[in-house]
Amino acid sequence: MTIFELPQVEALIRAALAEDVGRGDITTQLTVPTGLQASGTLLGKQDGVLAGLPLIARVFAVMGAPVRVDERLHDGDAFRSGTVLATVNGAAADLLVGERLVLNLVQRLSGVATLTRRYVDAVKGTKATVIDTRKTTPGLRALEKYAVRMGGGGNHRSGLDDGILIKDNHITAAGGLGAALSAARRGAVHGMRVEIECATVAQVDEALAAGAEAILLDNMSVAQLAEAVRHVDGRAVTEASGGVTLETIRAIAETGVDLISVGALTHSAPAVDISMKIKL
Amino acid sequence: MTIFELPQVEALIRAALAEDVGRGDITTQLTVPTGLQASGTLLGKQDGVLAGLPLIARVFAVMGAPVRVDERLHDGDAFRSGTVLATVNGAAADLLVGERLVLNLVQRLSGVATLTRRYVDAVKGTKATVIDTRKTTPGLRALEKYAVRMGGGGNHRSGLDDGILIKDNHITAAGGLGAALSAARRGAVHGMRVEIECATVAQVDEALAAGAEAILLDNMSVAQLAEAVRHVDGRAVTEASGGVTLETIRAIAETGVDLISVGALTHSAPAVDISMKIKL
Amino acid sequence: MTIFELPQVEALIRAALAEDVGRGDITTQLTVPTGLQASGTLLGKQDGVLAGLPLIARVFAVMGAPVRVDERLHDGDAFRSGTVLATVNGAAADLLVGERLVLNLVQRLSGVATLTRRYVDAVKGTKATVIDTRKTTPGLRALEKYAVRMGGGGNHRSGLDDGILIKDNHITAAGGLGAALSAARRGAVHGMRVEIECATVAQVDEALAAGAEAILLDNMSVAQLAEAVRHVDGRAVTEASGGVTLETIRAIAETGVDLISVGALTHSAPAVDISMKIKL
Amino acid sequence: MTIFELPQVEALIRAALAEDVGRGDITTQLTVPTGLQASGTLLGKQDGVLAGLPLIARVFAVMGAPVRVDERLHDGDAFRSGTVLATVNGAAADLLVGERLVLNLVQRLSGVATLTRRYVDAVKGTKATVIDTRKTTPGLRALEKYAVRMGGGGNHRSGLDDGILIKDNHITAAGGLGAALSAARRGAVHGMRVEIECATVAQVDEALAAGAEAILLDNMSVAQLAEAVRHVDGRAVTEASGGVTLETIRAIAETGVDLISVGALTHSAPAVDISMKIKL
Amino acid sequence: MTIFELPQVEALIRAALAEDVGRGDITTQLTVPTGLQASGTLLGKQDGVLAGLPLIARVFAVMGAPVRVDERLHDGDAFRSGTVLATVNGAAADLLVGERLVLNLVQRLSGVATLTRRYVDAVKGTKATVIDTRKTTPGLRALEKYAVRMGGGGNHRSGLDDGILIKDNHITAAGGLGAALSAARRGAVHGMRVEIECATVAQVDEALAAGAEAILLDNMSVAQLAEAVRHVDGRAVTEASGGVTLETIRAIAETGVDLISVGALTHSAPAVDISMKIKL
Amino acid sequence: MTIFELPQVEALIRAALAEDVGRGDITTQLTVPTGLQASGTLLGKQDGVLAGLPLIARVFAVMGAPVRVDERLHDGDAFRSGTVLATVNGAAADLLVGERLVLNLVQRLSGVATLTRRYVDAVKGTKATVIDTRKTTPGLRALEKYAVRMGGGGNHRSGLDDGILIKDNHITAAGGLGAALSAARRGAVHGMRVEIECATVAQVDEALAAGAEAILLDNMSVAQLAEAVRHVDGRAVTEASGGVTLETIRAIAETGVDLISVGALTHSAPAVDISMKIKL
Repeated sequence: MTIFELPQVEALIRAALAEDVGRGDITTQLTVPTGLQASGTLLGKQDGVLAGLPLIARVFAVMGAPVRVDERLHDGDAFRSGTVLATVNGAAADLLVGERLVLNLVQRLSGVATLTRRYVDAVKGTKATVIDTRKTTPGLRALEKYAVRMGGGGNHRSGLDDGILIKDNHITAAGGLGAALSAARRGAVHGMRVEIECATVAQVDEALAAGAEAILLDNMSVAQLAEAVRHVDGRAVTEASGGVTLETIRAIAETGVDLISVGALTHSAPAVDISMKIKL
Repeated sequence: MTIFELPQVEALIRAALAEDVGRGDITTQLTVPTGLQASGTLLGKQDGVLAGLPLIARVFAVMGAPVRVDERLHDGDAFRSGTVLATVNGAAADLLVGERLVLNLVQRLSGVATLTRRYVDAVKGTKATVIDTRKTTPGLRALEKYAVRMGGGGNHRSGLDDGILIKDNHITAAGGLGAALSAARRGAVHGMRVEIECATVAQVDEALAAGAEAILLDNMSVAQLAEAVRHVDGRAVTEASGGVTLETIRAIAETGVDLISVGALTHSAPAVDISMKIKL
Repeated sequence: MTIFELPQVEALIRAALAEDVGRGDITTQLTVPTGLQASGTLLGKQDGVLAGLPLIARVFAVMGAPVRVDERLHDGDAFRSGTVLATVNGAAADLLVGERLVLNLVQRLSGVATLTRRYVDAVKGTKATVIDTRKTTPGLRALEKYAVRMGGGGNHRSGLDDGILIKDNHITAAGGLGAALSAARRGAVHGMRVEIECATVAQVDEALAAGAEAILLDNMSVAQLAEAVRHVDGRAVTEASGGVTLETIRAIAETGVDLISVGALTHSAPAVDISMKIKL
Repeated sequence: MTIFELPQVEALIRAALAEDVGRGDITTQLTVPTGLQASGTLLGKQDGVLAGLPLIARVFAVMGAPVRVDERLHDGDAFRSGTVLATVNGAAADLLVGERLVLNLVQRLSGVATLTRRYVDAVKGTKATVIDTRKTTPGLRALEKYAVRMGGGGNHRSGLDDGILIKDNHITAAGGLGAALSAARRGAVHGMRVEIECATVAQVDEALAAGAEAILLDNMSVAQLAEAVRHVDGRAVTEASGGVTLETIRAIAETGVDLISVGALTHSAPAVDISMKIKL
Repeated sequence: MTIFELPQVEALIRAALAEDVGRGDITTQLTVPTGLQASGTLLGKQDGVLAGLPLIARVFAVMGAPVRVDERLHDGDAFRSGTVLATVNGAAADLLVGERLVLNLVQRLSGVATLTRRYVDAVKGTKATVIDTRKTTPGLRALEKYAVRMGGGGNHRSGLDDGILIKDNHITAAGGLGAALSAARRGAVHGMRVEIECATVAQVDEALAAGAEAILLDNMSVAQLAEAVRHVDGRAVTEASGGVTLETIRAIAETGVDLISVGALTHSAPAVDISMKIKL
Repeated sequence: MTIFELPQVEALIRAALAEDVGRGDITTQLTVPTGLQASGTLLGKQDGVLAGLPLIARVFAVMGAPVRVDERLHDGDAFRSGTVLATVNGAAADLLVGERLVLNLVQRLSGVATLTRRYVDAVKGTKATVIDTRKTTPGLRALEKYAVRMGGGGNHRSGLDDGILIKDNHITAAGGLGAALSAARRGAVHGMRVEIECATVAQVDEALAAGAEAILLDNMSVAQLAEAVRHVDGRAVTEASGGVTLETIRAIAETGVDLISVGALTHSAPAVDISMKIKL
């Protein structure tokens, strides 16, 4: 079971087909003879990093359309404008119905992979890993996190249930940093590390004393980050977060943090231009 | 029934909550006492145009959480960085669970509205209307098309079923432009205009002769567009499509086309930065 | 993707199987050996016009039952009592479970097609097209509108979202006929004509003056219809509606209206008697 | 939990709203101001027997619309043309969206109840009960069987799982009438009677000998029915089936059968004309 | 359509996979190469009676995994510790994902069948049939009732809708035993027997006089049961219920009751230990 | 959002109501007057530990039934036979429909909590925590894991996606213990510890050398466990698994392992007897 076979992904494809096809593709029904065969070529119209190619086959499978897909590249491959990414063969009516959704998916995910690759390249040579956040498109989280991996990044937790991250409000609600950390460590499902958000180096010291296993350094300057990393000194995983851009990430990485989380990877990646040329 | 009350929107919220909350917000369960009340402030951190504010109340309603929402602005309003957009009051645990989805939705939709407003402003004074395309985020089409309206744009068809648009493949499959047009007009549900895509001015003439009611002028230069508009001379609605950017749109509008469709409005709008500050 | 492959149709079949099969066909489980093969013959027991034959294969496909279906006629064909419409071959237990739903669907849809054909025949030689309404069986609209087409009729809008029809209440709410029309034309998705309901010839004149593209002539006498058509004089599509029966439709058609909408096509068509004879 | 509160009924209403409302009621959105209140009157335009009135409130509840419904009659009541059946008060936009589905449901179910009442009246004074069959509208079985009860009829089994009915194919498959009956009686869930279909009086005798508890007399003449009833002599429940019309049912009832099943009650009942007059 | 092909069973498998697999089997994704094949052996580790074996194939089918299953025994067969029940062949990743659900299902259902067999053996030679109750695991009723049959038991009604059982509260609400019985008999769907619960022999007499067709003897001592059976004298089906254990059931059966219902069959059957050994 | 408010739990309740109520509670419909009010008392009929009490309110809420629930104890409380656990007040028909599902849930979950408490008590004074496994009832995992917590136990991972556990097959597939561990550590979502299964002390040493953070000691004797714990010496979390019973668990705990996982907690806990007494 790959990610593309998860029921959540099938549900997304069904919802997306429903919103696009609705009561049926009137134009095609009125103009394209049943049984007419066609072939299509998926073509990169910009340079980019590919993600989501296996979704072509999934979209047509969910439609119940017997379309043959030949993938020419693999997810994670960089491609140049003009590259053929895949070809499809099947009924013209099926290709015309599925085309838009296929493109909307592959363009967006490749956009995420492409932007991630730029961030990853920017920290090359440091020990920092670029990771994503929960700032994803509603309904597309699993796919977007996969695209981040294809771009060379790593993943933060998938949701509120498979990782523990104590933020300022949790600390206040629990009655202090130490109380929050110990409540979380006591109740955590065996197998999860407890991470806590710190805004100052003093808080970092307090968190370390209370046994934090990972520390999110929130909105710190590069100087503060460097100091915090020195204080931690390998006793916990460190994550820099907040205000990370392509301009600032290199300096952040050089402070020695383990992880740098970047919301823009998923909330502001422009689509990569990809077209499907259909021939009857 | 507003758009926010459609079952499709509720289904999207449910899917998005499921992917974020999964088996429950562990951190909050372990650190936040049941019954603790809190208030939150939705704050613009950039200038922008607002879209999706009523989704705050919808998200908490779908969660079954009794949260009071006070909207301070209306969708479609422009706002400055630092503006309070809304406040929320309810159980701390509910606010912490719903916060991320609320922001992911409002940031994205406001991003679409904000980008649309820039395109709309760029054609001010011409007769052209900026409209969207089917290049939307899978699962979010209805909301993104709404955001385009909030930005001042208009909408192209919602899907393959509520508008007829004959493209090159349909023409080939039907055996020619005239055959395609007459098949479409004969079979169209009463109430729909038939639109056809033309790549040359010669095709435009052929389409007019065959009774086209709307013509999509595909990837034409500004000069070609101007000539096509002259040929049409008010006998059909004209739509310019392809390669439209903030740099090129003014010149396109000045050719006299009725509509200009822009894929970037929905496939490449960066999120507007909005935060929710929670106080216990 | 034909209409029979739409997810709505699969959902209807699933719901109908669930209500008929429930926890399983007890009688068959207790009396029919697993693996016993059988063949069935779908037989018209009355004259009629066929609609819904492809649903046989869909029902068995949704059941997951490997049944071979041979269609002997096509939807839209008229048939005489005694005609074999299709044969089916598969496991006896599958045929016995699917039989009732297959018949309930084909009988009903053929009933709609048969009644539509009678109305269509009644206006032969005039320019009027017989069309349906939204007075369909809840859950079966797409199929019933298809059956109307098989009977030779046309379709009015599919729902509240793919056509604009301004009725008396909308006029009042908008503050007058002109205000309603201009609001609708301004906000309409590009590609939709605006239709307005008029009860008097004076209203027709007002609607024309305000730019109506289609006019529903509501519950008018034949004389009023004729006068209204003269006033419109080709400037808008005209639709007669209300009180249309097999007795009155000819005279209505001869007034020169473009469309005649008939609720009875879908809300009062008796089923055509069709049986399935199974042989073990 | 009445029938109207079953999840199946809610699912039907949701599906029916989805097919009618789709992406939203454009006309109303463009012409009716938010917050405008209205009242509506449900009026019988023909004589009939009422069924489905509580669905008005259910439809608006499923829509999430706060509409007040005042029912003036009860399901099962006969009414004259011109009678007010119910009034509704709420937002104009909600009434306009829900109106069509409410009417489509109440008209159809009242049609079933009205036709049933005619059959029931036709056998008055005999011991026969008029019952329905599985020849119902796909998706509406529970509601249509309820409408039959409102018309004064009784119900045959709801589906293949809550009653045992051995037909000719089951007999053949099981290797004879006796074998089929004994297999069914052995395996039947405690609490169910076993019914068997007989086409001749000889078969009736065989069924009685094998311990049948109910016998369906299939397509027999009145004379055969009378003889079969004499043979049964109270040892089993008798059901006449096949070719029952308003013309023939009285004679059938006078043969002394216990039950007469009539497919037309549900597959061919014309809708009763009911309108909703909305006032702003 | 066997029970394993019912949509309810597919829905259960989907829900169970969703709760186990969630966002994907991380361990397998990170360690097992795509395409690696494996075989597995389902082995009984205790003596037992088998139930649910066809669910192995269903689980892998619902996963969309092409796994070949060879069943070595049949449901209902008794097996010894060490017996191979089935073998499976397919992709290692698929076997590892499906293994746990397959075992959780087959272990539980075989547990029910095994316990039922012990109760059935305990009444051998008497006329009593051991039957189940509605005290089943939420979501698994159809499967557990099937397991009871595989153990040699019979089934009480499947739910509140396919059998009538009048209990003390119904009697009070209806205004007495006779009133309840006659209301139930009048309204019952043709084909259902009416059963009534009695706590004393006096009530049994009253129920018989009112025409009860089946009587549930609730929490009676063996002596009371024997007396009740004598009073009934074959005029109704008798069912003993309440406080039945492996120690008491023989004596209860010897009173001559027809049915003995046992809640423990489904609510307290321990799982039978079964393992799946996978070889790469 | 407590666990009882998760959509998965609502879906389970809906499925369980559907399987029990089906087309409606016939007996109650025929005998209990609409509007008749009643009260019910949930009574422990055995000693036990309570789990699932909030599900009473959830069941009635999902039914849409306005029932007032007064909880007298809290989940996690031990209770004696004869204790009133809760009272309910509402329509008699609602209480009769919901009663069985409420009891099936609370009896089962309290069974799990009660058995867990016995295991927890057996290790009192040692450092070992009793935890559950994935051997849960399909569809009920979240609830059963909650019941384990109410009994005083801890939880192992919830599914294949929120924890990493490398078993023998993963080691083989990855090409050795070290390769498997490093692949898992590299790819793990930040925040998850990597656990590995070891069958011998030699493997434990190898796992420690390769950086295992948690070690599952599979089916070891008490002597082996003690030796393994000495070898680990606090460098990793240790979990004993396999063959744990109430008889053996104390000795296992005294070896110094951190965690002891017990499948029987969820796959073989007998229901606790609880009744609901309804008074009209």
